[in-house]
Amino acid sequence: MSGSSHLHAVILAGGSGQRFWPLSRELNPKQLLTVFGQESLISQAIHRILPFTGGGSGVMVVTSERLFDELRNHLTSQPDPSLREVTYLQEPLARNTAPAIALAAAALEAADPDSVMVVLPSDHLLADGEAWAACVEAARTAAESGYLVTIGITPTRPETGYGYIAVGEALPAFTVGAAVPHAAVEFVEKPDAERAAAYVESGRYVWNAGIFVMRASTLLEELAAAGADGARIVDVCRWLVAQPTTARHSDEARERFATLPSVSIDYAVMERSRRVVVIPASLDWNDVGSLLALEEAARADALGTVRIGPGIDIDSRDSIVYSTGRLVATLGLHDMVVVDTADATLVLPKDRVQDVRLVFEALKAVGAPEVTQPKVSLRPWGSWTSLLAGDGFHLKLIEVTPGARLSLQRHAKRTEHWVVIEGTATVTCGAAVFELACNESTFIPLGELHRLENRTGGPLRLIEVQAGSYVGEDDIERLEDDWDREG
Amino acid sequence: MSGSSHLHAVILAGGSGQRFWPLSRELNPKQLLTVFGQESLISQAIHRILPFTGGGSGVMVVTSERLFDELRNHLTSQPDPSLREVTYLQEPLARNTAPAIALAAAALEAADPDSVMVVLPSDHLLADGEAWAACVEAARTAAESGYLVTIGITPTRPETGYGYIAVGEALPAFTVGAAVPHAAVEFVEKPDAERAAAYVESGRYVWNAGIFVMRASTLLEELAAAGADGARIVDVCRWLVAQPTTARHSDEARERFATLPSVSIDYAVMERSRRVVVIPASLDWNDVGSLLALEEAARADALGTVRIGPGIDIDSRDSIVYSTGRLVATLGLHDMVVVDTADATLVLPKDRVQDVRLVFEALKAVGAPEVTQPKVSLRPWGSWTSLLAGDGFHLKLIEVTPGARLSLQRHAKRTEHWVVIEGTATVTCGAAVFELACNESTFIPLGELHRLENRTGGPLRLIEVQAGSYVGEDDIERLEDDWDREG
Repeated sequence: MSGSSHLHAVILAGGSGQRFWPLSRELNPKQLLTVFGQESLISQAIHRILPFTGGGSGVMVVTSERLFDELRNHLTSQPDPSLREVTYLQEPLARNTAPAIALAAAALEAADPDSVMVVLPSDHLLADGEAWAACVEAARTAAESGYLVTIGITPTRPETGYGYIAVGEALPAFTVGAAVPHAAVEFVEKPDAERAAAYVESGRYVWNAGIFVMRASTLLEELAAAGADGARIVDVCRWLVAQPTTARHSDEARERFATLPSVSIDYAVMERSRRVVVIPASLDWNDVGSLLALEEAARADALGTVRIGPGIDIDSRDSIVYSTGRLVATLGLHDMVVVDTADATLVLPKDRVQDVRLVFEALKAVGAPEVTQPKVSLRPWGSWTSLLAGDGFHLKLIEVTPGARLSLQRHAKRTEHWVVIEGTATVTCGAAVFELACNESTFIPLGELHRLENRTGGPLRLIEVQAGSYVGEDDIERLEDDWDREG
Repeated sequence: MSGSSHLHAVILAGGSGQRFWPLSRELNPKQLLTVFGQESLISQAIHRILPFTGGGSGVMVVTSERLFDELRNHLTSQPDPSLREVTYLQEPLARNTAPAIALAAAALEAADPDSVMVVLPSDHLLADGEAWAACVEAARTAAESGYLVTIGITPTRPETGYGYIAVGEALPAFTVGAAVPHAAVEFVEKPDAERAAAYVESGRYVWNAGIFVMRASTLLEELAAAGADGARIVDVCRWLVAQPTTARHSDEARERFATLPSVSIDYAVMERSRRVVVIPASLDWNDVGSLLALEEAARADALGTVRIGPGIDIDSRDSIVYSTGRLVATLGLHDMVVVDTADATLVLPKDRVQDVRLVFEALKAVGAPEVTQPKVSLRPWGSWTSLLAGDGFHLKLIEVTPGARLSLQRHAKRTEHWVVIEGTATVTCGAAVFELACNESTFIPLGELHRLENRTGGPLRLIEVQAGSYVGEDDIERLEDDWDREG
């Protein structure tokens, strides 16, 4: 597995993950969750493709303006330094996968006309290893010969919730190990149960996992050739990447992007192009499309129940009980899902998991903060956890990574009290710089320049009591920041 | 409704309320819950009988040594000053209702040989008003004539979980309004469904609600005459109340009490005595025997679901969703119960509510703190809430009632940081006494004498960060306390 100077990964990370609430939030979408294994789904997705891109700089994360900060905070706070090298491309507006992928293609083509892109969802599960490596290499070779390549998953059950691809004749020239590209005959969206069963039975269909490999230029050509909508998408994306970075969030950029149709890459290109090939593969794929995916997060007990987190269960059958940390006790459940987080609990039967978005929308309609903000907010320097908030105050637990420091900042409307409960902090307050040991406290007056820093090699935790006329996150003026954050 | 110098209320408040977990805890049993109305169940029980006792000093709360502090903290922190006047009787050990009631009878008889006692559970719901007042007056008159009187509830359904009393001939001499004492013919424990239906159909049976009115001396006589077990109960209780107060918790007291049989007053006396009368009454009684009682706490929606607390429900039928403050979302439940508290969640079908004790016992067996301690601990001066605890620190929200103050105290192993987030505190720290306004902080060094006080007429809330080698509640030395608490 060697890197190629032309191979770039495009990680689609604009999804809001409504169907994974309350684990996911608008500002903590599914791709950031560490529910499956030690790493988040996006971190897994990047690590899956890193061996082929020659490092993190060959990875482009496509996301929304709103999620950009959260994604960068997350990836820069991970131990692997490669994750700090990835680049980001912000869509002016969310417009489904065709505009998102076209925008990435336009950016890659502008930098290198021979770019080959591997497009990967950021929030799926997929086994890497030899079979995956063979798929990527076979797909790259086919892509370099001008094909639009998709990696299709050999189905294991007659699932009606997925798209299927009909597999045609083999193109043996591009074979690598067990990975054999075939002509893609037809794309079918979510078939009914009877057709799904027939597809699986036939052995001639694979699941569409949303993984595509192609030259950036081929994609843009085929999209432009697919009709007026496709041509407009290509025009606007090429125009946008030609703008200076700062102009990409202008009103004009948003207005032009808003005129684009919200269409999937499957609909806009794959179902129309005659240059599509598919590589069937068995890769233990899961689209993590609903809370039922939590069954993958642990082994079921003798009664078929999967339990994660503190608590106990008595007698429950075929249920999922997931707690992020609070005690959850269950008794006599049948086919139920219970998801418990620091600030919200969801209970529903398994056969209603698709309707979690109704709950999400209903809560959003009444302005519930629990759909937007997670309890723990990751930052490049560590994290903060909201413990208690009320009129004129906000209480937080702050953890600062060894060697990291917050920005040099000041607040116009709040003061801050800090009490160290673990480790030693280095505090800048006005002209003074001093150490604050465990069980020592200090006070940051209104408007005073200050900075918090962990110069030690161990953990630093402190309690912060913010008090003032306004204690929102946006009351911050950053004068110096290791991550060049604004405002 | 006038008080009588001989009428005393005996409130049985030793119950641990396992079946109401996670709302109830070992140190916050069912009788302390404010789930039904503005007042706790014990406060409702006391207010129900206060008009007849001539004030709080005529009310004796019988409880365990373990619960005594919690009960007193609770009752002294209520706005009604009568609740601060009640007296307490601590059982050396829990030994069911016969020893508990006999102990109260022995204490009352020793103080006043003509005492008439109204025995009331502390954790039931009961409508007071005219019918109740008539029952108490009729019962008192019959009790003064030497009867053991019980107030029985006219059944509204063929409940198999209750005891029934067969109603015999009327004793019209003691009638007050609609309250007519009758001979009690038979006590029946939890009949099967067929018999329960026949009882209700006959109109000749009432529910045993555990409410008894009798002279203390009559009860002791009848108990002593009922057999060797009863005689021993009377002997030990008379011996115990003759001890100085401090000796009532001696090893000898515990050992003697431990030899008593754990029997109910029904079994030990009521089923055997020929001097028992029953007053049938319709008093909207509920024994709050399981989480199903939460249906009384709010009106059901169109689909039969009762929801209390923040959150939303979509499509749930005939379910109970109770949250003490966190957001709970439910979707498509049928006949389920969800109870969510600050630190624990319970989910089970309605037909398993009796098994909540299994959950409680399983959690207790693994030492889960969530079965013992509530998140909010009431104190005579206000309350504290545990926000975060960890190795060497404990973070609390402290609320001090207007005009109240904590004890003058010191800690051997922890320091305390205080930040006021609402109101103004008066702080004693060593020789200094000073005011701490909102958004000001102070530090209590190790071993320093200190006191926290709210001299204002408004609320006082502060954040306390405790840090030290040990942060348990028992590291406290009280030098002066408005409530004479020890240690």
